[in-house]
Amino acid sequence: MQQFDALWYNVNLATMTDNGQPYGAIIDGAIAIKDGYITWLGAKAELPAFDNLATPMFDGQGKWLLPGFIDCHTHLVYAGSRANEFEMRLNGASYQDIAAAGGGIKSTVAATRAASVEDLFVLGKDRLNALLRQGVTTVEIKSGYGLDLDNERKILEVAQLLADHHPVQIEKTFLGAHALPLEYANDSDGYMDLVVDTMLPTLAEAGLVDAVDVFCEGIGFSVAQSRRLFNKAQSLGIPVKAHAEQLSALGGSALVAEFGGLSADHIEYLTEEDVQKMAQAGTVAVLLPGAYYFLRETRMPPIDLLRQYQVPMAVSTDLNPGTSPLCHLPLMLNFACTLFRLTPEEALRGVTVNAAKALGKNDRGLLQVGLRADFGLYQISQPAELCYQLGVTTLRQLVIGGQVTQINS
Amino acid sequence: MQQFDALWYNVNLATMTDNGQPYGAIIDGAIAIKDGYITWLGAKAELPAFDNLATPMFDGQGKWLLPGFIDCHTHLVYAGSRANEFEMRLNGASYQDIAAAGGGIKSTVAATRAASVEDLFVLGKDRLNALLRQGVTTVEIKSGYGLDLDNERKILEVAQLLADHHPVQIEKTFLGAHALPLEYANDSDGYMDLVVDTMLPTLAEAGLVDAVDVFCEGIGFSVAQSRRLFNKAQSLGIPVKAHAEQLSALGGSALVAEFGGLSADHIEYLTEEDVQKMAQAGTVAVLLPGAYYFLRETRMPPIDLLRQYQVPMAVSTDLNPGTSPLCHLPLMLNFACTLFRLTPEEALRGVTVNAAKALGKNDRGLLQVGLRADFGLYQISQPAELCYQLGVTTLRQLVIGGQVTQINS
Repeated sequence: MQQFDALWYNVNLATMTDNGQPYGAIIDGAIAIKDGYITWLGAKAELPAFDNLATPMFDGQGKWLLPGFIDCHTHLVYAGSRANEFEMRLNGASYQDIAAAGGGIKSTVAATRAASVEDLFVLGKDRLNALLRQGVTTVEIKSGYGLDLDNERKILEVAQLLADHHPVQIEKTFLGAHALPLEYANDSDGYMDLVVDTMLPTLAEAGLVDAVDVFCEGIGFSVAQSRRLFNKAQSLGIPVKAHAEQLSALGGSALVAEFGGLSADHIEYLTEEDVQKMAQAGTVAVLLPGAYYFLRETRMPPIDLLRQYQVPMAVSTDLNPGTSPLCHLPLMLNFACTLFRLTPEEALRGVTVNAAKALGKNDRGLLQVGLRADFGLYQISQPAELCYQLGVTTLRQLVIGGQVTQINS
Repeated sequence: MQQFDALWYNVNLATMTDNGQPYGAIIDGAIAIKDGYITWLGAKAELPAFDNLATPMFDGQGKWLLPGFIDCHTHLVYAGSRANEFEMRLNGASYQDIAAAGGGIKSTVAATRAASVEDLFVLGKDRLNALLRQGVTTVEIKSGYGLDLDNERKILEVAQLLADHHPVQIEKTFLGAHALPLEYANDSDGYMDLVVDTMLPTLAEAGLVDAVDVFCEGIGFSVAQSRRLFNKAQSLGIPVKAHAEQLSALGGSALVAEFGGLSADHIEYLTEEDVQKMAQAGTVAVLLPGAYYFLRETRMPPIDLLRQYQVPMAVSTDLNPGTSPLCHLPLMLNFACTLFRLTPEEALRGVTVNAAKALGKNDRGLLQVGLRADFGLYQISQPAELCYQLGVTTLRQLVIGGQVTQINS
């Protein structure tokens, strides 16, 4: 007789597997967990014999159960607000005016450098709590507002503290090559030396780097500089990804594909050739409709090409104070559908199975035996509801690693 | 010595009055209430002598205090979801396909007619709770998914039940002239007879009608039909408003102005002449960026003209299942700034003082002695923060009619 730690029944499962049904659905199903992992799932009628006196059982009453959401691209640890810039711009100030007033990413770097570990932890925790209440169980956190060794380390250590003290699972990405610090103005090669030769190996050695990212753009770092960084990452056995093709077709996405990297993110200016290379390499396309919206961009990522070449599409918040101060993954589901014309199923795969792929995690993102017991129980009539409406909380229970998590809904 | 029921100190007040400061701000202020109304406010240094042993005092620790938000245009009481249509459309279905499948407003009317008072109350309460957690203290609720006497009455009675049993203040608007029911297909004059001669007087007599609204549009009701309705409302002493100039310049806004009406709502196609008439009549322009976004409209309301003629601009959710299933007023603040280029101060006036004007309520919408004690206390560095960021809850306390309200933040 099977032993379960807990069982949910009278639930519709959106497994997100390729079982031939939309959303990989199993209607009137059940799911059982043991030791933090999914140990059985299927139609309720096929439930095997188990010790039903000793097993906590939850009657889902027809609710839907989905994999925990994964926010695979965030800059969640930062200090300072850019609300003043937002207001200046809407009152007619130019980007030059704002830069002259100390605005832009420089202001976030200054505030983050000045902040203590404790301050950053509290700010990060509030943001993680918001995501948790939205059904998010895994979050990627990038560094990139430190831009020197000590401050990049501080951000990644805060990410590690959050991993240790918050139920949401954390992936830590080193994004030292996010922008040029004031100390290296006009010497981006010199700064890349520091990133490649000192920062990355030191932080990797400290166990703080799950992946390496770069802002590969005309106003960021070149493909040649990004290649140096990726070579170093490869020599350390660390997977790579890039902010690429957001504002121009520079070739960052093809570079990620060349290195067999995890994901190319933003990608509004991706070419068909880039898409082919990503498809061949298994690189995920991470769509960030929050930044597209907030920056009032008009060029959409090439969704049809991504479909045609079957490049997996993920969807994420890009949470950051400059271009997407939107700590709201359900809003991104709606944006992905309304602005980028993804179907609700594509959008939901984008925050589950494909977001897991974008993080290189094959232990989550689906409801499947053997994967982590990370899932949310929703009071909805159909999965598309999660993309369509906003504001009314439908999350009734969130399970992370088999633990039912406290949410204030 | 003054007697207060409660006092907040060490707070920055965004009074939204015209005191010469942005947001009508008073930095390092205090505010005191008695019997549900604001009885003193000003700089903390000028606080008069009061019985400080008997008075509950809240130390705001530098937080910001703003008038309670007012959502002045919602269709909050409805049953059924249109997530299936949303999904069909994104999978390539045409509007004809969806209509053939029983979709569109007809499906909401059918579901709302079939729903019990209890069902509608629970659905409405969940939506009100979402708005409450966002700092909303007054909500307008329209009928319009009943489209016959009994069902329009049912919706307005649910709105009244919510008014009686929920702390958020409710204004009830009769929108029988929302769409043509199936029973009157091809006989819109016949349906308008029913609305004007039977439904409006009956429901007004029952005390269920604070204002009268109409969907004045090519696909709705004509200006001539709207005029008949407004004449009847005027004879009953009930103020009028209209859904107008959303899809074409039909003249509904000018008609509202001619009747000295409360507001013209949507107004993407408003002409300069319409704007002048609204300015003269004191009619409020209600901006609904949620519907603009959800319908992927490209024509913006004439914001510069509204500024030029000093027409008060309100901002609202337009919460409804067809074109704005977005129960999220803070998102509308961000939309108003990002999509319509309102300044944060204009957007926040749009959900406070100007939203109160749109409802004809001069007892709220500002922090001012003699007005209702409806306000929210926010952990923010500046008011613009409320328009700029989304997701992380900054509301720390919400007061409605002098009562500190339970919020789960």
